[in-house]
Amino acid sequence: MKLIRWGAAGKEKTGVILNDKRYDTSAFGEDYNEAFFDNDGLTRLAKFVSDNEGSLTEIADGERWGSPLGRPSKLICIGLNYADHAKETGATPPAEPVIFMKATSAIIGPFDDVIIPRDAKKVDWEVELAVVIGKKASYVEEAEALEYVAGYTLHNDISEREFQLERGGTWDKGKGCDTFAPIGPFMATADEIPDSGNLKLWLSVNGKMMQNGTTANFIFNVPFVIAYVSKFMTLLPGDVITTGTPAGVAMGMTPQAYLQAGDVMELGIEGLGVSKQTVKAYSK
Amino acid sequence: MKLIRWGAAGKEKTGVILNDKRYDTSAFGEDYNEAFFDNDGLTRLAKFVSDNEGSLTEIADGERWGSPLGRPSKLICIGLNYADHAKETGATPPAEPVIFMKATSAIIGPFDDVIIPRDAKKVDWEVELAVVIGKKASYVEEAEALEYVAGYTLHNDISEREFQLERGGTWDKGKGCDTFAPIGPFMATADEIPDSGNLKLWLSVNGKMMQNGTTANFIFNVPFVIAYVSKFMTLLPGDVITTGTPAGVAMGMTPQAYLQAGDVMELGIEGLGVSKQTVKAYSK
Repeated sequence: MKLIRWGAAGKEKTGVILNDKRYDTSAFGEDYNEAFFDNDGLTRLAKFVSDNEGSLTEIADGERWGSPLGRPSKLICIGLNYADHAKETGATPPAEPVIFMKATSAIIGPFDDVIIPRDAKKVDWEVELAVVIGKKASYVEEAEALEYVAGYTLHNDISEREFQLERGGTWDKGKGCDTFAPIGPFMATADEIPDSGNLKLWLSVNGKMMQNGTTANFIFNVPFVIAYVSKFMTLLPGDVITTGTPAGVAMGMTPQAYLQAGDVMELGIEGLGVSKQTVKAYSK
Repeated sequence: MKLIRWGAAGKEKTGVILNDKRYDTSAFGEDYNEAFFDNDGLTRLAKFVSDNEGSLTEIADGERWGSPLGRPSKLICIGLNYADHAKETGATPPAEPVIFMKATSAIIGPFDDVIIPRDAKKVDWEVELAVVIGKKASYVEEAEALEYVAGYTLHNDISEREFQLERGGTWDKGKGCDTFAPIGPFMATADEIPDSGNLKLWLSVNGKMMQNGTTANFIFNVPFVIAYVSKFMTLLPGDVITTGTPAGVAMGMTPQAYLQAGDVMELGIEGLGVSKQTVKAYSK
């Protein structure tokens, strides 16, 4: 099953994709959020869709795509999780996962504009596989970790490198700016992605391929990451863990070519669709 | 006005403190969360309390105190914001505020137990003044920053120093463990704290005074911090910024005496009451 949300930002309605078309599931009456996942929402939604398949309304093509998920309690990021990316940033591959957090106020839809913050010069892209947690997870064993996955989605972990690395303190300053977390187009339920460790993922800027990797190159795979994070904090239903990016970001280029207003990013992961964001300058 | 929440964890009801007694405001019908602050809830609640002052039900003494706030979208922390604390940790006082984030799943009530995570050895305390945001704040000017404050509350920024500093990556790993954010006893509205930059704050462990400071020693004061953070992310109504801790944490002692099961922390800030947490070992 492929879950979507659609309509005006902040007032998204829910839907599903069936045969490549978007259908409204507002009548189901619940957002795709913590309460939904916590109360076996995926099973109930599947039944609702099956019961109503002939009568669901198709969503007009012009309707905005929102993030497929209601706002999670946490957007947890794994840093430097591909050896080639660690190398291009000048970092040593980590001995254990690097965790940081992204402000959930940064979340936008998969085709929304990415805004360069005021006074920012080093805005960068990062295509990532994001994991959506299906049930409360604390001290989970690696062997059981996949039981806690509701699904997967595509995430562009936009970063401002000066804010992240040159302004003191932790990375969080350069990771949570508004519009820095385009998510979607859809969340695929876990059954659609039998092997999260063997997915091609890519990102282009203005049509030029910049990242072209595979999750087969994860340093720490999805089950390990879930088990690891769950030792440090309880994961709640609907929480998102985004799993790091392969090589090919602007910071790793010589010379570094950061995003400029007018640039267009397209990105995708096998089985999880394609998103596209245009970069704009900040204006009040 | 002093806002509280009370009752079973995760199912808190709302209340207010009047003449040192707790009164139920469940009939007001809204939690103290983003929607409440965003829709002028404080003004409406004050009218509700005034209209019903004679008929509000007193809350029984035995009822649990919850965090005074519904779960915020963000719990943003300012690190090393007192010169004496920066010195005791061996850090250089920062040239601009250090920002990190605490998982909101760590939030507990002011008298709940603090749990030592499995395999944790370096659990530490930090009494802090926390600021509650009243309205959406983006690129706020320092001179106007206090207009965005709904109120203030007391926060114990519990930290696991090995997770925070010795396990790679950012500080977030050692800051967001479950129970690591006791908040309350109450949120005082901004009018009750005319000068957030001149408040005594203290913390004792087993009756021995460990921290005894004043917010007059802030490196960066509340208006500066709000303006600063709002350059990196939009603050939403109900979001919490916790402003750092003065000297006197376990990490700064010789020898370091981290928290053990059975220890009791008491802490307070002038005008914002006192909280008390007992430390317990993790058990499944």
